[in-house]
Amino acid sequence: MSGQPRIAMSEKMRRPVARYRDGAWVQTDDEIATEYALTIYVNDHELATIVCTPSYMEDLVYGFLASEGIIQSVDQVESLQLSRFLGTARVRTKSAITFNQAFYNKRYIASCCGKGRQSFYFHNDAVTAKRVEDTVTLSPAEVFAAIDELDREAVLFQETGGVHMAALCTPQKLLLARTDIGRHNALDKIYGYCLQHGISLQGTLIAFSGRISSEVLLKVSKIGVGVVIARSAPTALAIDMADELGITAIGFVRGRTFNVYSHPWRIEGALPD
Amino acid sequence: MSGQPRIAMSEKMRRPVARYRDGAWVQTDDEIATEYALTIYVNDHELATIVCTPSYMEDLVYGFLASEGIIQSVDQVESLQLSRFLGTARVRTKSAITFNQAFYNKRYIASCCGKGRQSFYFHNDAVTAKRVEDTVTLSPAEVFAAIDELDREAVLFQETGGVHMAALCTPQKLLLARTDIGRHNALDKIYGYCLQHGISLQGTLIAFSGRISSEVLLKVSKIGVGVVIARSAPTALAIDMADELGITAIGFVRGRTFNVYSHPWRIEGALPD
Repeated sequence: MSGQPRIAMSEKMRRPVARYRDGAWVQTDDEIATEYALTIYVNDHELATIVCTPSYMEDLVYGFLASEGIIQSVDQVESLQLSRFLGTARVRTKSAITFNQAFYNKRYIASCCGKGRQSFYFHNDAVTAKRVEDTVTLSPAEVFAAIDELDREAVLFQETGGVHMAALCTPQKLLLARTDIGRHNALDKIYGYCLQHGISLQGTLIAFSGRISSEVLLKVSKIGVGVVIARSAPTALAIDMADELGITAIGFVRGRTFNVYSHPWRIEGALPD
Repeated sequence: MSGQPRIAMSEKMRRPVARYRDGAWVQTDDEIATEYALTIYVNDHELATIVCTPSYMEDLVYGFLASEGIIQSVDQVESLQLSRFLGTARVRTKSAITFNQAFYNKRYIASCCGKGRQSFYFHNDAVTAKRVEDTVTLSPAEVFAAIDELDREAVLFQETGGVHMAALCTPQKLLLARTDIGRHNALDKIYGYCLQHGISLQGTLIAFSGRISSEVLLKVSKIGVGVVIARSAPTALAIDMADELGITAIGFVRGRTFNVYSHPWRIEGALPD
């Protein structure tokens, strides 16, 4: 089953499979999600390798750089060259950037107890994650509608299984939806698009297909959106972070039920009297 | 909704939720998956921070070290000290280890075309992933049975949603099952257990609850198991790696159907005549 093209260029590709069904074998082929390794260099410094779905890769790079605190706006970028063959994104910034390797992905252990920010486990997150002050409010009907909109967009998901989907919405409508095999890449693609097109995030929310992990919650805070709605449950650490970062985390949206885990004041009726 | 204990010690914890159901609000609480950041130091060198479910953490550390190629056997470890409060694992090895930062998580881009190992994207994977020669064979009934066994073990999954589960099995029975919120941590927990208890992996297979990503496939090869069976689909890159590494990848096990994506010779009847 070798001999397929290994340089991935689309969100999915066909692969041969031997399918067993009800006692019989069929040789056929199937649509498979592409997984693509993209290495980001900033001013010739190798920053990170992201394993992603190869779509909207410019948006992905901009979103990743902003969420890592490397850039604050796209104006700081002189050039961005993508080589789809090599799987590289080469970024040049207008001003020099100092890379402190001790800063990225290094453990942040809070030195004292009980007061904020101890939920963070990486140094750079403790710096770049920001409290969201947005005062958007939603009705329960709008919570359900956001997840319904996400489902309608989930075409790739239906076809290959196992991709994550994120959508930026207002309480009334879906603005932008992105898919990726990587849990937070779909969010970076949204972030990068908004940065490049100057889209205001005031009054918006994010609908997400998967679990709200701490990494997903951190991305939402870095993007600056006040509400995240997911089909699945959050983790306990994500709830802690949501508490601290002012984000309303909603999960387990199923049938006519959902749970609000933090900052219920944004959801009509959720605050106890 | 603050004031919960932030140092996580169990696989799940209770958190308050505002639940909306059929038009009415209830203030209640719910079981939530714990997410725990564990930083591994080897001889005082900060190696990595793993976000995990805090169970079987010694196994997790041993499995991670072995799959990263830092150790080949547990005998190389002088001591392992876990601090659950700080979220640290401090490992001392009997012999000195040279850490080459340029090696870990750095992009591996193959310099020439068409010949093996170009599927790998990290240097250390290209070194530590090994071709699996195990000649275990399974019948279709045994494929279904492995997934059924996995389902029976999936108690944590039922309760909190959104955790991954991996099981080491023979074609006839389940040997060991582990859960984690991190996709490959469940596999590292199995690997570390086998290393510490000298369990032979000959004739075994791994059943996995999620998608077979390239990272999952690499872990399976590093553990040295020849068959991986999952409910969900693999990615295209994982299929490439499975081809190269001699692993039979089986996915989309649903009802009376499954797909074999690579090395079908291990599954009875799957090879076309």
